[in-house]
Amino acid sequence: MLFTSGLIQIDKTAQVPVYLQICNGIIGLIRQGTLKPGTALPGSRVLAALLKIHRKTVVAAYDELYAQSWVDVYARKGIFVAKNLPDVSPRAIGTTPNKNAYPNKTFFEVPQKVPYPELFATDNPRTLVFDDGFPDIRIAPVELMLREYRRFANYHFTQKYLTYGPEQGSVNLRTQLARFLGETRGLQVNADDILITKGSQMAIYLCAQILLGKNDVVIAADPGYPGANETFEHTGAKMQLVPVDEHGISLDAVEAICRQKKVKLVYVIPHHHRPTTVTLSAERRMRLLELARKYKFAIIEDDYDYDFHYASSPILPLASADYDGCVIYVGSFCKTIAPGIRIGFMVAPANLIIQTTRLRKMIDRQGEHLLEEAIANLLKNGDIGRHLKKANKLYRERRDLLCTLLREQLGQYLSFKIPDGGFAVWVKYADGFSPQEVSEKAAVMGLTLNDGRDYFYDNNPAHQYVRLGFASLNNKEIREAVDILGAVFKKLS
Amino acid sequence: MLFTSGLIQIDKTAQVPVYLQICNGIIGLIRQGTLKPGTALPGSRVLAALLKIHRKTVVAAYDELYAQSWVDVYARKGIFVAKNLPDVSPRAIGTTPNKNAYPNKTFFEVPQKVPYPELFATDNPRTLVFDDGFPDIRIAPVELMLREYRRFANYHFTQKYLTYGPEQGSVNLRTQLARFLGETRGLQVNADDILITKGSQMAIYLCAQILLGKNDVVIAADPGYPGANETFEHTGAKMQLVPVDEHGISLDAVEAICRQKKVKLVYVIPHHHRPTTVTLSAERRMRLLELARKYKFAIIEDDYDYDFHYASSPILPLASADYDGCVIYVGSFCKTIAPGIRIGFMVAPANLIIQTTRLRKMIDRQGEHLLEEAIANLLKNGDIGRHLKKANKLYRERRDLLCTLLREQLGQYLSFKIPDGGFAVWVKYADGFSPQEVSEKAAVMGLTLNDGRDYFYDNNPAHQYVRLGFASLNNKEIREAVDILGAVFKKLS
Repeated sequence: MLFTSGLIQIDKTAQVPVYLQICNGIIGLIRQGTLKPGTALPGSRVLAALLKIHRKTVVAAYDELYAQSWVDVYARKGIFVAKNLPDVSPRAIGTTPNKNAYPNKTFFEVPQKVPYPELFATDNPRTLVFDDGFPDIRIAPVELMLREYRRFANYHFTQKYLTYGPEQGSVNLRTQLARFLGETRGLQVNADDILITKGSQMAIYLCAQILLGKNDVVIAADPGYPGANETFEHTGAKMQLVPVDEHGISLDAVEAICRQKKVKLVYVIPHHHRPTTVTLSAERRMRLLELARKYKFAIIEDDYDYDFHYASSPILPLASADYDGCVIYVGSFCKTIAPGIRIGFMVAPANLIIQTTRLRKMIDRQGEHLLEEAIANLLKNGDIGRHLKKANKLYRERRDLLCTLLREQLGQYLSFKIPDGGFAVWVKYADGFSPQEVSEKAAVMGLTLNDGRDYFYDNNPAHQYVRLGFASLNNKEIREAVDILGAVFKKLS
Repeated sequence: MLFTSGLIQIDKTAQVPVYLQICNGIIGLIRQGTLKPGTALPGSRVLAALLKIHRKTVVAAYDELYAQSWVDVYARKGIFVAKNLPDVSPRAIGTTPNKNAYPNKTFFEVPQKVPYPELFATDNPRTLVFDDGFPDIRIAPVELMLREYRRFANYHFTQKYLTYGPEQGSVNLRTQLARFLGETRGLQVNADDILITKGSQMAIYLCAQILLGKNDVVIAADPGYPGANETFEHTGAKMQLVPVDEHGISLDAVEAICRQKKVKLVYVIPHHHRPTTVTLSAERRMRLLELARKYKFAIIEDDYDYDFHYASSPILPLASADYDGCVIYVGSFCKTIAPGIRIGFMVAPANLIIQTTRLRKMIDRQGEHLLEEAIANLLKNGDIGRHLKKANKLYRERRDLLCTLLREQLGQYLSFKIPDGGFAVWVKYADGFSPQEVSEKAAVMGLTLNDGRDYFYDNNPAHQYVRLGFASLNNKEIREAVDILGAVFKKLS
């Protein structure tokens, strides 16, 4: 056939490079049968002249075609459409390929083993949200993280992170994290004592799977964190709930349970307990450790927002006063960088780290090595420390603004204590206001907030409490949200 | 105090920006007590003149100090070291912080629930390796992936990927993958039928956890893939093993078991069965589907290397001929891009996707949204298709070279069939050669290869087989490795 310039369309303004346009154009001609196997293609000089482009571009296109096996190259003869085209259609098995709709139900039975975590809707409505206490992703240090990724473009340096890596997590990250935990939390650990996980959720799942079995007793606070409770119950364990007051969970209640039955695990969020935001007092921390030694239960210390404190210096974690191996210390960078960046960790003695690491390998083999290296560099450079200082300052201002506005404008409808740290205020509605009604009315006016569920184990909104997250809202948004909430209360009064 | 230029050291050639050097220098002076709370700092003009730098740099340094709460700013008065310094040490609980060594054993008991997966040594020896069949990370399209990450630096675009995302995986990725699976595999599915996982391992784990319980019967081939078998056995299920010949697993053996007991699950690797590299014939595929309908078992079709075939066109997956919902289709990009890039997927009817997605949420909440978006773009742009074409061409050449050399140089010591695709050759040593001895001698001479374990369920190296991975070695390395292997055999003869 005569190869004419009209056969291939080139658009020099398109995003696709010209050599790829030529390459794809020729592939198209081969596929539609215009260029048959064995056909000679014009030499690069000829085609360059035909298409009015540089010869190098044609050579690049031919190289690409050769790399993709669309052409054969014979020395001193030229370039020919390949005799064996790479674009073979797969062979169907049995009858024709399935044109039916994909079945919406399995033929085999699927046990409903996991009834609880609700799945997200795909699209979040674009309204004002008092969330449960999330960081502001608008200040997330994503540029810094991407800067580290850009450094990975130095290819030889990066290769070792692309193959199967250590299941326990990047050695660099564990080393930097050990230093960071020592400096910020007085935790004297080293890289071997740490397992890097996907968020603190994975650490909780791994510990639950290893430590718990059917009918084992787990103690947690009520109100508490359903994401942990559900994970414990998934193993067949039974929850025993204890109250929480302004100094944290009740250890009298914990001890009363321990006297009656064998307790396997106590789950505690010592800094800014979710949802009530209270801090476990130093005295109770010491007593909890004593109880753990006396009754031989494990403690999961979920310290996910230790780094966010505004009022006073934080109390050191339980883990930093644990000389006996009673405490599993769990933390996360999901609140520090962004919820979508899934890096968490657990610190525990070697015998538990080995078991959880093996299980982790069975689940997903290993974490994202490149991401772990990026976070390691951010810790090493001090970028994370600097970001935390800035974020703390900003979130403290937002907390103060929200608390001031709530007190001044909505004092008659609700009450609260100013939280020492974290991302949300724990608010009690005055009698007569139903959190469900408030939430419904607010939604109509463009404000999303919790309807009183998700805090207490009985899921009953009659408790009259909600969490109002302030960290993810700027000052303007906080004012707007409080204004809407005020209007809702007025309507309901 | 008098603020003199000597107090702050600036190195304009250092990697740290000058404004950060000034900022960090001043923080150092505050920390060591040289600059006390309330001390006035020099105006930006004065300090710029003192340090012989641009005033804007000083302003940037002061902004950073303010953002980190180290200084107070009073309008028309100036900048002062903050009265309340942010650098407060945390309060210890009880006694002094733990200076003891971290305990190496828990106080509570840790059940040894996960005995099997061996954990990696941290450092891989830098020798020549005949691996189990891994891709060559040196040709991994990492630049393309990082190009997508660079696009994410466009911040507004990226924000939505930083918050909690869909647990089922990026909608973009699932949409692109559905199209890709349709084009390459004749699988007529849409985004809702797909769950994005961390590699195919997570898909196998999720299905095992949902579908299996104590003493349930699972059928798999022997020799087979221990990573799957161990995951099934972890649920308490019992493995029933069936032989595998040149057309794949024996369905007579499968049916014989089904006649005797209730079978819950059949695990099959239809393309290039690991370890033997055989392809399940079209006839057996149809019969396996019939058996699944007759005996109501689930099929996990692990098709991790469908995209790598060299000899002939591939046979369509079982899933593409499954009209009834018998097949769970599992795949991965870990072999396409790099093992360290953990993206896999499962395709199944909605009732199973919901259960596995819920469990996935309990394990780690969601995948890496940014990474999932990057892969979605690579699929959309055709980059992955192009890379696969190139990789196939290269790996086919490497397969041919290895097979030629093995036949010509080592024909008296071993035998094999040329594999249709995949990453490794399944080699049988001649009688009298122990895989363990070969492996030990080779290691001394700088070549790492399997010692005959990890293929058969009994883990017995007496079977005389090993896999020789060719894809990750270039031609020079393949020649060297075969030379060493030849020298080993000569020594052992």
